[in-house]
Amino acid sequence: MARIAVLGSGIMATALSFPASENGNEVDLIGTFLDREIIDSIQRTGLHPVLGLTVNEGVSAYQLEEAEEVIARADVVMCGVNSFGVEWAGKQLASMMRPGQKLLVVTKGMRADEDGTLHILPDVLRSYFDPGLAEQISWNAIVGPSIAGEVAVHHDTCVVFCGHDKEDVDYLADLFRTDYYHVWTSTDFVGHETGAATKNMYAFAAGFAQGLLRKAGKENDQYVMYNYGAAVFAQGQKELRSLITMMGGKPETGDGLGGVGDMFVTSMGGRNVKAGAFVGEGIPFSEVQDRYMKEVTLEGVAAIKVIGGALERQAERGLIGPEDYPLCRFLYSVVEKDAPLDMPWERFFQDLA
Amino acid sequence: MARIAVLGSGIMATALSFPASENGNEVDLIGTFLDREIIDSIQRTGLHPVLGLTVNEGVSAYQLEEAEEVIARADVVMCGVNSFGVEWAGKQLASMMRPGQKLLVVTKGMRADEDGTLHILPDVLRSYFDPGLAEQISWNAIVGPSIAGEVAVHHDTCVVFCGHDKEDVDYLADLFRTDYYHVWTSTDFVGHETGAATKNMYAFAAGFAQGLLRKAGKENDQYVMYNYGAAVFAQGQKELRSLITMMGGKPETGDGLGGVGDMFVTSMGGRNVKAGAFVGEGIPFSEVQDRYMKEVTLEGVAAIKVIGGALERQAERGLIGPEDYPLCRFLYSVVEKDAPLDMPWERFFQDLA
Repeated sequence: MARIAVLGSGIMATALSFPASENGNEVDLIGTFLDREIIDSIQRTGLHPVLGLTVNEGVSAYQLEEAEEVIARADVVMCGVNSFGVEWAGKQLASMMRPGQKLLVVTKGMRADEDGTLHILPDVLRSYFDPGLAEQISWNAIVGPSIAGEVAVHHDTCVVFCGHDKEDVDYLADLFRTDYYHVWTSTDFVGHETGAATKNMYAFAAGFAQGLLRKAGKENDQYVMYNYGAAVFAQGQKELRSLITMMGGKPETGDGLGGVGDMFVTSMGGRNVKAGAFVGEGIPFSEVQDRYMKEVTLEGVAAIKVIGGALERQAERGLIGPEDYPLCRFLYSVVEKDAPLDMPWERFFQDLA
Repeated sequence: MARIAVLGSGIMATALSFPASENGNEVDLIGTFLDREIIDSIQRTGLHPVLGLTVNEGVSAYQLEEAEEVIARADVVMCGVNSFGVEWAGKQLASMMRPGQKLLVVTKGMRADEDGTLHILPDVLRSYFDPGLAEQISWNAIVGPSIAGEVAVHHDTCVVFCGHDKEDVDYLADLFRTDYYHVWTSTDFVGHETGAATKNMYAFAAGFAQGLLRKAGKENDQYVMYNYGAAVFAQGQKELRSLITMMGGKPETGDGLGGVGDMFVTSMGGRNVKAGAFVGEGIPFSEVQDRYMKEVTLEGVAAIKVIGGALERQAERGLIGPEDYPLCRFLYSVVEKDAPLDMPWERFFQDLA
């Protein structure tokens, strides 16, 4: 049994309180400055208004002002903000966490330096910590195909807890593992985090076919466009695996839960797919963002901007070839330069032999 | 321009006549003994009654009695029957094909010897040929995520033409390549054929979640079971890649169009998925087959019986470990032994490190 403090009370952070609390752990959800109403609601009635579910006994909710105290008494601290909040979360956690605590990161994404060097988010969080403290924190993350609400309603879900230290990830896995929340562990930390960040890019592309059909008035035709989506998925998988390898991860991480599995679930729907569908309809991405999906968190688009931009820098520096990652780089031109949806098929699958 | 004779006039064989004829090739569809009505219909009105589309100019239809003559004058012969007809097709083609002709196989599946040794279907077809003639035939196949009707209505489709000889597959690819039918070529013949056969097994498993939801009365709930499907997909990809390697193919073939792409498209729907959904509802497979899907061609179930059975033999002989291919072997117990749908999650993802 452990005391788990969660910074962020979004749907994924809250969903994970279900298996955690059912194993007898105490879970303390801490709202960010964006979560005031969520915390109010949970404090009053137990209901998480976005998730649409009542949290378990053993789950408590706190406003941000109580964060320091709640984090101080925790055995495990989870970072449950979205990728846009990672710098903010880094500062908070760096000032509140204590030596010996274990951090478990749910946030997915990457950051890049000016020269195109990419970093996984746990390392970004770490950069805000005093080096001496950082050494005394255990760094870990959860990866794998998890639609939050499905975890919360006890549907079978298979994930990987990854980190630097096998003993620590095994300890954390034991806190969360139930008969529906199936947990594996891995020390391929960078590989799993890269896969998890990357899959969101290709989920955006997974929406294109739906938009193309809508534009053509063929949404309800007998024959839709699964072939298109499958080809994009296959090229996405090639690039995801290659990115994992480039980041120093194990290529086979791209085959499993943290790669192809996660990309599959993300392609099944959600905000990134919806944004991609608007582009498929022929709407320039800037208009999608300004008009149709204003203020909607698009993790996939964020990942395309960071990773696609970094690959441009890396190509300029000769670190990758001009023909490498053609799908990611095409997606970058769509979200950053309003490029029309003219899929560069002929540049795909260049490694066949 | 070439003259292409197609043995079998099912939906995939006929769909491929669209890009082929649009490139100026003459396409002659030859019905099997099961296709009499289809051929009648095409001869009378041009309409393929199952596909629901009218064939192009340049596409002709012939009853089986004319097969010998039609095949004799062809440059390229396609084997377009389903996997249940491969032995029949082998005998036909062995007696009709001539030295110098190129064979292009669309049929997907495998066959196994008594001892569990697996064979790709082009090799099964070949076994019916006089060895001298077999040497003078060019052996090739088409692989990749292709829902037939989508090809026929000109939706973007990406496939791989594979075979032993690079020049031959390039020649064949040029006959079919259009602005919507995107063709790559590969000489990893066994790898691509194994992936194409294997993906159908996992498509059967892709139906389980839908059936489980139906059984629980949760089909229209806010939260469905994509996490379940994604985990099955990820384990499927691991096993597909491993099977490709075991058969002597290139492991990376499992990442691309012929592996994960094809598995993706097949998981989106169709007969195998439907059969899996019945099992998800709790109906023993024998009952699904006898009552709900009587006389329906289930390529996935056929593949599970052949490959799952072969893996049992290989495990008995110590060629693979008792814990290898846990999903395939579980599926085998479902279709051969009416095993209940108790997914062996704990046996999955054993290679994480």
